Amino acid sequence: MMTSTISDHVDYVSGKTRLFGIVGDPIEQVRSPEMITAEMVGRGLDAVLVPIHVLPHEFDACLPQLLRVRNLGGLVFTIPYKARACALADDLLAQARVVGAINVLGRGKGGRWRGEIFDGLGCVTALRRRGVELAGKRVLLIGAGGAGAAIAVAVGFERPASLRIHDIDADRARALAAKVAHAHPGVDVAAGAPVLDGVDVLVNASPVGMLADARLPIDVASLPRELVVLDAIVKPERTPLIALAERCECTTVFGREMMRGQIAQMVDFFVST
Amino acid sequence: MMTSTISDHVDYVSGKTRLFGIVGDPIEQVRSPEMITAEMVGRGLDAVLVPIHVLPHEFDACLPQLLRVRNLGGLVFTIPYKARACALADDLLAQARVVGAINVLGRGKGGRWRGEIFDGLGCVTALRRRGVELAGKRVLLIGAGGAGAAIAVAVGFERPASLRIHDIDADRARALAAKVAHAHPGVDVAAGAPVLDGVDVLVNASPVGMLADARLPIDVASLPRELVVLDAIVKPERTPLIALAERCECTTVFGREMMRGQIAQMVDFFVST
Repeated sequence: MMTSTISDHVDYVSGKTRLFGIVGDPIEQVRSPEMITAEMVGRGLDAVLVPIHVLPHEFDACLPQLLRVRNLGGLVFTIPYKARACALADDLLAQARVVGAINVLGRGKGGRWRGEIFDGLGCVTALRRRGVELAGKRVLLIGAGGAGAAIAVAVGFERPASLRIHDIDADRARALAAKVAHAHPGVDVAAGAPVLDGVDVLVNASPVGMLADARLPIDVASLPRELVVLDAIVKPERTPLIALAERCECTTVFGREMMRGQIAQMVDFFVST
Repeated sequence: MMTSTISDHVDYVSGKTRLFGIVGDPIEQVRSPEMITAEMVGRGLDAVLVPIHVLPHEFDACLPQLLRVRNLGGLVFTIPYKARACALADDLLAQARVVGAINVLGRGKGGRWRGEIFDGLGCVTALRRRGVELAGKRVLLIGAGGAGAAIAVAVGFERPASLRIHDIDADRARALAAKVAHAHPGVDVAAGAPVLDGVDVLVNASPVGMLADARLPIDVASLPRELVVLDAIVKPERTPLIALAERCECTTVFGREMMRGQIAQMVDFFVST
């Protein structure tokens, strides 16, 4: 049994294996090495994604040189590098241009590095898989941090009837609303209160409800049955908000579904570039 | 079955996995990713060794930056970088100082990079495993290229009675003999003819007999039974020289045994530094 396991590993990484990495600081907690490697291997690709721990004061000198490794197929960027990594891209794709951050860099035809952010696209895709199209819908987004910004931009691309953004930092919500409104003229985008009147889809991109946090990101005792609720939090799988939504018989989308959609899209991106 | 294999892989590389690499040009043919990864995993280490393809004109700018990756535990160097890689080491160990080349760089205590070459030590260890100690022996080495140089130096450290070095390029043999003689005063080292009179141990470090090459590296019809024969060639496993030695009932050591010894020593080095 042990021998067979080791022999699997031996067959797995070879001189021909295409290399991918995730760059962050810290790095030990990242899940991309398991998840993206499994997605690539599951598609029959000879590829592995490894953790690459780079310190902030070494990022600017180190990363351009890392990109010279010829068998490097692409990089994923996580905290704190999503915004800084934009400078490494020769071309920024649609979402990344608006968000001002990337989470993937892929080697394109002719050797040009293409950057895109899939943090928000994963949200749109997960909703679509549940039969929820955002076009014409009224969306309330809680949280205007990094994840919230990517989600707001991706939602904007779907042409919702309206997008209201709430954050405990009101300035941050207003700045994000202005950015999305500028990028998507004709979409009704504004900072707003965390109230559900007239809302079709509620998205939580705030950390409220994460791990042992028993709070709801919005002050309600129940939710309308016709509301669609997506919580971007991955741990726990069933957040207090999702648990309430299930009790109220809402359509629910878990953070894990959003992450799975994003993983598939990132591998699509690596393969296509 | 397929699912179980993928799940093994998923468990295998995580954010905590320590990263090692082999740097060369070309890179697809290297075997270290399988062999060293298997050795590390077999010892219960959470580590992977991946191929890193760097082009010669990018080596000097790229490698110092690669060494800044914090979770990089070490690098293996192969053709054409064994000599150039010396410049990356803060400290050169005993074999590397004499050979003027390294095949491993390990992160030492305090962050200093230590370089050593195990190409020759693998030869000495493989002989020792067969009960052959080189101290006081008369050794004939065929081939004074990169592998030959590392073997000559490692043999010199063992204090043989004599070491004769033959190469089709006589100047190369003489230069290597001078280098080893300088490093090991008191050991009788010289360039010499490929004749077996008075030889206890014959080592082939030339490419003669590799792959489909049916030639012997030394012009003989038979070998004395008491001769010890080591062939550094890995493919084929049974070279024409080894096949002749077996027919003559000599003690034989295969290139693969030498490589296995070297792999174990390289992992020891990575773990100890």
